[in-house]
Formats: sequence, C-alpha cells, structure tokens
Amino acid sequence: MIICTMGGVKRIAVLGSTGSIGRQALDVIRALPDELKVVALTGNKNLELLKRQIKEFRPRMFYSSAKPDISYGGKFLSAEEIASHPEVDFVIVATAGKAGLRPTLAALQAGKTVALASKEVLVMAGEIITREASLHQAQILPIDSEHSAIWQCLQGEESKPQRIFLTASGGPFYHYSQSQLTEVTPEQALQHPVWKMGRKVTIDSATLMNKGLEVIEAHWLFSFPFDSIEILIHPQSIIHSMVEFIDGSLKAQLGWPDMRLPIQYALSYPRRWSNSELPRLDWEKIQSLNFEPVDYEKFPCLKLAMDAGKSGGTYPAVLCAADEVAVELFLSHRISFTDIAKIVQKTLEQHRNIPQPSLEEILAADAWAREYAAHLSPGYFPEPEQRSNPGIER
Amino acid sequence: MIICTMGGVKRIAVLGSTGSIGRQALDVIRALPDELKVVALTGNKNLELLKRQIKEFRPRMFYSSAKPDISYGGKFLSAEEIASHPEVDFVIVATAGKAGLRPTLAALQAGKTVALASKEVLVMAGEIITREASLHQAQILPIDSEHSAIWQCLQGEESKPQRIFLTASGGPFYHYSQSQLTEVTPEQALQHPVWKMGRKVTIDSATLMNKGLEVIEAHWLFSFPFDSIEILIHPQSIIHSMVEFIDGSLKAQLGWPDMRLPIQYALSYPRRWSNSELPRLDWEKIQSLNFEPVDYEKFPCLKLAMDAGKSGGTYPAVLCAADEVAVELFLSHRISFTDIAKIVQKTLEQHRNIPQPSLEEILAADAWAREYAAHLSPGYFPEPEQRSNPGIER
Repeated sequence: MIICTMGGVKRIAVLGSTGSIGRQALDVIRALPDELKVVALTGNKNLELLKRQIKEFRPRMFYSSAKPDISYGGKFLSAEEIASHPEVDFVIVATAGKAGLRPTLAALQAGKTVALASKEVLVMAGEIITREASLHQAQILPIDSEHSAIWQCLQGEESKPQRIFLTASGGPFYHYSQSQLTEVTPEQALQHPVWKMGRKVTIDSATLMNKGLEVIEAHWLFSFPFDSIEILIHPQSIIHSMVEFIDGSLKAQLGWPDMRLPIQYALSYPRRWSNSELPRLDWEKIQSLNFEPVDYEKFPCLKLAMDAGKSGGTYPAVLCAADEVAVELFLSHRISFTDIAKIVQKTLEQHRNIPQPSLEEILAADAWAREYAAHLSPGYFPEPEQRSNPGIER
Repeated sequence: MIICTMGGVKRIAVLGSTGSIGRQALDVIRALPDELKVVALTGNKNLELLKRQIKEFRPRMFYSSAKPDISYGGKFLSAEEIASHPEVDFVIVATAGKAGLRPTLAALQAGKTVALASKEVLVMAGEIITREASLHQAQILPIDSEHSAIWQCLQGEESKPQRIFLTASGGPFYHYSQSQLTEVTPEQALQHPVWKMGRKVTIDSATLMNKGLEVIEAHWLFSFPFDSIEILIHPQSIIHSMVEFIDGSLKAQLGWPDMRLPIQYALSYPRRWSNSELPRLDWEKIQSLNFEPVDYEKFPCLKLAMDAGKSGGTYPAVLCAADEVAVELFLSHRISFTDIAKIVQKTLEQHRNIPQPSLEEILAADAWAREYAAHLSPGYFPEPEQRSNPGIER
C-alpha cells in the first residue's frame, strides 16, 4: 500500500542519489513535480554532486558518508533514520553493495514502500527482507528493468506463472572465445553495448554475474522457484523479460533500454504516468529481436550465482562480496577478466554455509569473503592460508 | 460476468462447430471435461461432421442449416434460440460471414457471455452489438489471436493504452512484386505460412483484408480510436499483438501460433488452465523475431478496410460483403488475386453510406453489395448498370 499525503504528492527519499540509478530517479522526479517530491537525499563520496542535488531539491533530510559542509535548514540524519522517517512515504534504495541492507530493513519495519535498485539487498538477505516486509505489510517494488518487466507482466493475472525468462543482453563479449575473454581490459569491459550503468554493474553485466544476481532477486521478489527461472540472451535488450503462464501463453514487457521507465513505473504503480522525456520504441527502426541460449561454460559467474542462490544461507552474501572484491581487482588491472569467476568460485568453495542466517551472520560472512577473496590475489592461486570462516566457527 | 452452474462447469454453445475455429473449440472443451460442457452445437453444410460431433458430445440442443436426420433426444432449435437459451452460459460464435449477427445479438440480449471468433459480427454491426452488450451487461470476449493478445496485455492496467500494434504475418506473398501478385493462384493463396484456417480467412490473410477487419474489430472491442491502431508485419506470428502505454512501456503477448490458446483463454478468463495439449514456445528454436512496416500500396485491401471502419455506418458491411463475393470469385478462378481489392474498392465507391444504421439497413447494404460486386465480374470493369443502393434510397 502506497500512502500519499501532501495532497497526493508522494514524498520520496532517494538513498544513493549520486549514483547512476539515483540520478535517473531524480530525472523522473524532476519531470513530475505534481506527483513526486524529494524529501531526503543520501550520497556517498561524490560530495560535489550531492551538494548540487541538495541545492536543487532542498530535501528536508540528507546524509553523506563524508559529512558535508552544508547549511540550508535540512537535517543531517543517518540513512536508517531517513528510511524510517514519518515524513517519508516512499524509499528508493539505489545504494551500492551492502549499504542498502540496514536502511531497507528500517524502511520496511516502518511500513514504507521500498523501491529496490540495489540487487545486493535481496541477494544477501532475501529471507530476512521478505519476512520483514510481510510482517509489516510493507511493499517491495522492483526497479531493475528485468524485474519491473516481470512485475508488469504479472499484473491482473490470477494464476502463478509456469516459467520466467530473464533476458540478458549478453554484454560486450558474448561471442568472444575463451582466450579472447582472458585478454579483455577494464576499458573494454566498461563499454556496455546497450545500458549506461555504474562501473560495478557494467563489469557484472560483462561476466553475466549481474544476471545471476537477478535470478536470486527474482526468486525473492516473486517467490519463484529457481527451477522456473530461465535466462535468454537477447542482445537488443528491447524485451526486458517474459513470463509464461500455465496455458502456454507468454507476456513480455518491452521498451527502449532506459532505466527511467522502470523507475517511473515503481513510482506511478498501480497507475502509469505520461512523461514526454521517456523514449518510445520506434518500430520502423527495429527489424529484428534476436535470441540465443546462454553459454554457462564461457560465463561461469552466472552458474556460480544461481548455485549460490539455490544453496541459500550465507552463500549469496559470500558471492556478492567475493565478486565485489574481484571486480575491483580487475578494474585496477591486478587480475584478468576470467579471474573474476575463479576468485568468486574459490571463495565460495572455501565457505562453510550458515542456513537461515541472521543479519549479523550475513555481514560476518561478507567480511570473511572480502578478506579471503582479496588475499587470493595478486599472488594468484598459490593456496592462501585458511582464513577464519564464520561458517565454520558457528 | 460468467455465470457457472452445474457445479462450476461452464455450459457452452458452439455456433459453427464444423468450421476451423469450431473444431478447435471442441478440442479445447474435450481436453477440459471438468470445466467445460457442450450443451449445443450448430453447423452449416458439413452435415457428416456435425453428426459425428453430436454423437460425441450429445448436446441438449443442435441446429444445422440442412436439417439433419438425427434422433438422440437433443432438441432442434434455431441458432438464436440456442444462443439465448437458459441452459447456455457461454456462446462461442464461430460461424462464417454474417451468420453470427442475429445469434450474437440474441445471446447478448439474454445476458450471455459471447466469445467472438467471427469478425463480421463486430465489423458489420459494431455499434449495435457493443450497445446491446452494454445495455444487458453482457460480456464480449475475443477469440481472434490478435485481440486475445491485446486483451491479455490490458489485464490489470488502469491506464488506457496509447497505441496498439496489431501484428500481421503478411501472408504468403508479402515480398511479391505487383506483377507477381497478379499471377497468384487460389492454390498458392490457400497455403498460409503460419496459421491453419478456413479458406475465406486464408485468402483474406493473403490480401491483408483480414488485418483490416481486425482493426475495425479492435476498435469496437476495446473502444480504441482508429488512429491509435497500427499494423506491424511480423512474419513468425509469435508476438500476437502489443499494447503501448502512456509511459512508453509496451506489453506483448506471445505464443506458438495455435488458435486453441486464445479459445481456451476466453473460456478460462479471468483464470488460466493447464492443458498439456497446448504447445509451448521453444526458445532454443526461435533465433529471431522480425518486423517490417506494412506496405499499404501493395495490399490495398488493408487501407480500404481501415477507411471503411473510420467512415463507419454501412461501409464496413459493404466491405465484408464485397470481399466475400470477390474471394469466392477468385477461388473459382474467375478473377485474379489483385482483382479482389478492385472489386471491393469499386463497390465501396458506389455505396451511399447510412450512418448509425439499423440491423435491417446493414443487411440491406450487405445484399446490395453482394449483388453489385457479383455483377462487376466476370465481364470485368465495363461499368455495370447502377444497381439499387439502399443508401441512396433511404
């Protein structure tokens, strides 16, 4: 249930407003002043941009990990205080990595509607997050284009779907050979053929780790069994995902690849709003939509993620942490592109799982995995010393 | 509202049970004996098949234009008596041409749910039919794959769509030159690349007249303005149609081209039923979905139909009648493939429209057009005598 006050204007907190999704969320809010109002912004290190955003939107609350020298009347509060604040109706969680975990929990426990752009929240702590949402009758809405597509396709359907097809552009290297993949540079990997995204997500798209995280996210968002979720390579990223029903009928959601559309849908739901700034598909320019099966062998991150999701417990948190470390190592030229999967795999192999973990156990697994993964490099793959594993010590 | 009695089993009258759609409707009903029961069948000239169907389904009522010599306890009633009978919950209108008009009206006036496969009913008398449905709170459900697709895509959406994309396979001759089109034989035209359909519909698909009739049908079924309905050539017929919303998001319905799916959806709505006999899309075999703009010049029937729909009144009935005559002439080798459009155009040009016609005026326009069109051939295009036009004489 979305609670609107202020004469129907939705009061929004944008957590992670200086990131790629945060900026696009502000674009949508800026274009719809009659429906949406920013009441809180939080940023991380890009203080200059946060200052400009604060100057423009004059939020009543703000936060930055680097406390900014701003005095304009707005309150400096923690992200958790903001997410659960009575003056907030709707929380957009667009923070990086695990930063969104506690604010999301705080928002849900306060009964807020949460629009999730941060995959890690549900991947790391899907069981806790969905339980708290249900307990407090708070709604979690997807912002990822694939999950938004599934959500849109499920509207008005009484029957549970039979299969889900998450589409994947395949990233820039889908047709590279194994040896070509080894040579990929960070500069090449940062050029995504379709989507403009942050650096971490762009690399995750190139390894298909991103798609694996989306499978786990879809599992928690919609209670789909893992076996009903399939991946379909679709280079044009026009079909954002599909749902197959028990009678064999499929629904797909399509649109020009632009994150502002799923962001706006989450904000307008269950309605839709006209926004002249959102692009339209031009069918005179679309001659074909292509599909091919996914190559799990060439892109092992996808399988690693799906297996971690199925195993559950602390595995998904370890997956996220190891991947974050590995991507950072790749971006700083310390490992090769194909080493990313190896680091993630090795870290997962060394982890002892904790089923149904608490938030603290999840964060401990995260910390262990970061340390373990970091020490796998640069002296790569001479077996590192066995490090403390919270799973073993439980 | 669908009224179910007999312990939830829907009692169905299939009008036109020996035609292509009728037979496929019986396939669906046969596969779902717990949900569906045939209580009435009507056929036209294929008496042998009707007898076999009666023997299998033992309907309580039946009708045939050639009164059959059957005695098994079922009542012989007119199609209108059947369509409005208290023991019928759900009427499938799968008759050819204008034969469905009066039974559809009778069913709606009795408050029955009508599933329409016969395009002519809404094309010829859309205004009357939709008014009666609204007056008696009776529901008209589409069975055509395109309209079923649109209907499925509109489920759960509060906003009215911005644009509708009716997809068209383009038929077997879409890439023929003008001179090649002149040489097309009935035998070639009856080989549709995707859909198995009756003879008349197959020829209408090859001329794209069928798509024009669908535009008019979509207009009446969903109250879409004609200007919001676009045609998109999509040779594989996997995407059955698409809807674009005001935010630029599109929904498409996809499925293997098989009429049993839209037939079953109309029967199961608002639920969906599992049916192992319905085919599933195999994405390992679908490498691409192609699209191209429609060529109105090479396929003039489409434009003729859209214009007749926009003009309204008795024009659409004249269009249907002239086309039926012209297709028959083509099938009996008396005119060429490209003459079909010429006959339809000439007949429309000579017709004086009656706005907001009564059913009798529609049927008079139909009779006039049949006679006029028939006399345009075979002594083709020496101007025939001006024939009585009910529009002029009004």
